[in-house]
Formats: sequence, structure tokens, C-alpha cells
Amino acid sequence: MPKVGVLISGRGSNLQALIDAIADGRLAARIAVVISNKPGAGGLDRARAAGIETLTISHRDYSTRDAFDTAMASALVERRVRLVCLAGFMRLIGQPMLDAFPNAILNIHPSLLPAFPGTDAQAQAIAHGVKVSGATVHLVNGELDGGPIVLQASVEVCDDDTAESLSLRILEQEHRLYPEAVCRVLEAGWRLVGRRFVRSVATG
Amino acid sequence: MPKVGVLISGRGSNLQALIDAIADGRLAARIAVVISNKPGAGGLDRARAAGIETLTISHRDYSTRDAFDTAMASALVERRVRLVCLAGFMRLIGQPMLDAFPNAILNIHPSLLPAFPGTDAQAQAIAHGVKVSGATVHLVNGELDGGPIVLQASVEVCDDDTAESLSLRILEQEHRLYPEAVCRVLEAGWRLVGRRFVRSVATG
Repeated sequence: MPKVGVLISGRGSNLQALIDAIADGRLAARIAVVISNKPGAGGLDRARAAGIETLTISHRDYSTRDAFDTAMASALVERRVRLVCLAGFMRLIGQPMLDAFPNAILNIHPSLLPAFPGTDAQAQAIAHGVKVSGATVHLVNGELDGGPIVLQASVEVCDDDTAESLSLRILEQEHRLYPEAVCRVLEAGWRLVGRRFVRSVATG
Repeated sequence: MPKVGVLISGRGSNLQALIDAIADGRLAARIAVVISNKPGAGGLDRARAAGIETLTISHRDYSTRDAFDTAMASALVERRVRLVCLAGFMRLIGQPMLDAFPNAILNIHPSLLPAFPGTDAQAQAIAHGVKVSGATVHLVNGELDGGPIVLQASVEVCDDDTAESLSLRILEQEHRLYPEAVCRVLEAGWRLVGRRFVRSVATG
């Protein structure tokens, strides 16, 4: 089974979606470790409940971002992790992690990128007045929310939506999308054509 | 019946979608005039076939953009047009048209704005590697493809899509979307909240 590492900062609902997909047989992988940069993050309890090793690596314990990043990379490499999944991880990924896991770090973002990168994507979407938004799973590179897109799902935006109600509707799609995207990246034979993520057998 | 004017530059497939929606009773409006800035545009034949008045107002006959724009605005105002629909109209709309038809000019664009404004939106989407794109109907203001969004529809982007195959899939949605958006704008009671287009009864 390919080993996956998951990085969290909070309650880890997308971590739970990955745990559930593995339990259901929808995702052929093993979560080797869940790392939180925040002590006591709710997602750590979810991991322990599923029998997954947990680590807290607090960015406050490191004097530079690179030192923090290197500590995470070392912990993941030691455990022979093949793919790293960010699941509500609220720190930027730095060069040591990108060097240790080239095109092997995934993030999920609550908009149809390239629209509304950065924080508060759902509030940005509401303020802009879009009628369709969604969720994006992408490979992490040096640009904020800018890496090659693995999978996207759209959701309708209603006139009476708030950032909160839209967030909930997008989150439902996130929980479906993330395990599917992890499957696609763990599959053999995908390639990047320019910045396009293309599967070995073009099935859409 | 509220009167609509349609501006075209080419074959006018979205004009045809509006003509068909009126014929089917899906759109309660009358197209009072179709104006082309290009003599011999294919859409003029479609208009004549439907018994609609046609005009050619060539931008080449005017020394400034404002003069051209004023000529179009005059022709539309004379015919008591309430709403202007751009349907493959390849000139920028200037201030005289915006002044004559405030929040009463619609455009359709082959992407999920704010992603991929400007020309070759479908090729931009392919190059960026998005997995979801679509079509947007928006009110025209002074910004390129930047006005308040009335309606959007998403389409899947497949690994083997080209700009051409994606364009065809988006065009299908455009033909469904544009008449529906015209209905919504002709309905009483919608309002702009910031840049959000909100219907009187929030039904999504």
C-alpha cells in the first residue's frame, strides 16, 4: 500500500474523508502519519481513533520557516511517505518540503482555481457574485494555490448564500473530491503537460 | 412584450438560441433589431429568416469609437429596446452605449468568470489545466468581462480536450444559458447588491 502523510492545523474534516475512503475501500493507501503544527488540533483525535500515528511539529519551536519545513520533511521521509496531503494546514509549504516531495504534495482549496486563491475563498466568491463556485485539488508548487490542478468539482451559489452556507456546500464536495484526487495521483502513468495534469488513459 | 436588441459580428449562434427560445415560448420578449458591425455577417441571414429587422453599422464608417457607439445607441433607443444582448459581438462597448443602457447590456463569455477573461478563453482554460470551465452571462460595465454575473453554467474539461472540443461543449451550455439569463434580467425586481446580481425572490 502506498503511504500517505496528512498535514493538519484544525479539526481535519478532510482528513476524516480520507480515513473513511480508505476504510470503505475507495482509496488504496495507508495514512502513515498525521502531523499537526498546532498542539491539540481536533484532527489529531480523529487520527488516533483510526489508529494512525500522530505528531505535533509546532512552527513556534523553530526559528525559521525552513527549519520548521525541514523538520516536517524529515518526519515524512523517515516514514517513507510517497504523497503528502494538506488538509486544512494553515502554513505555507517551503522549499525543503517541495524538494523532498516534488509534485507529491496535494492541497484542497474551496474555489474553482484560478478564481479566488488565498484565504476566505468562499467570501471572495460571494462578494464577487459568482453563480458557480467549487473545490480544487492541486499539486503544491511555489505559488500560492497555483500548482497544477488534479481535480475540480463545481457547486451552485444561491442568491441567499452566505460565506458559511456556501462553505458547507463546498465542503461536501471536498470530502468526495479529495480521496478521488489522491487515487488519481497514486495511479501510475500520469504526467504534467505544461501545467496540465493528464492521466495515462484519458478518461476525463 | 419587452424589446431586445442583439449585436453580432459573426454567425450568431447565440442569436439563434434567443430566436429559438422566443419561438418555443421559453423567452417572453421580442427581438426588435439585430445589428452587425460586419457587413455580410452570417447572423444577419438568421435574423432575416426569422423576420427580424437587421442593420449593419460598420465601425469602419466612423472616425472614433464614441461616434460608432453613439450610432448604435441611437438605433437601439429609436426602436425602444429595453435590453441589449451581445452575441459574438467583437467590439468593446463604449461610454455612449453604457450611458444609454445602464445595467441593460448583457454579454456571454465562454469561461467561468472571473477566470479567463478576454479572448481565447477556452484556450486559456486548456493551457491552465482546469478540470471545470463553463459559460457566464454578465451585465456589461466599463471593465472587460468584469460586470455583475447573472448566470453561469459549468462544463467538465477532459484530458483529451482541445480548445475546439471544449468550445463546442461550452457552446451547448451557452445556448441554454443565454435565453434563461435574458428572462432573469427582464423579470421585475432584481437588484445589484455590491456587484452581486440578486433576484427578487431568492430561488437560486
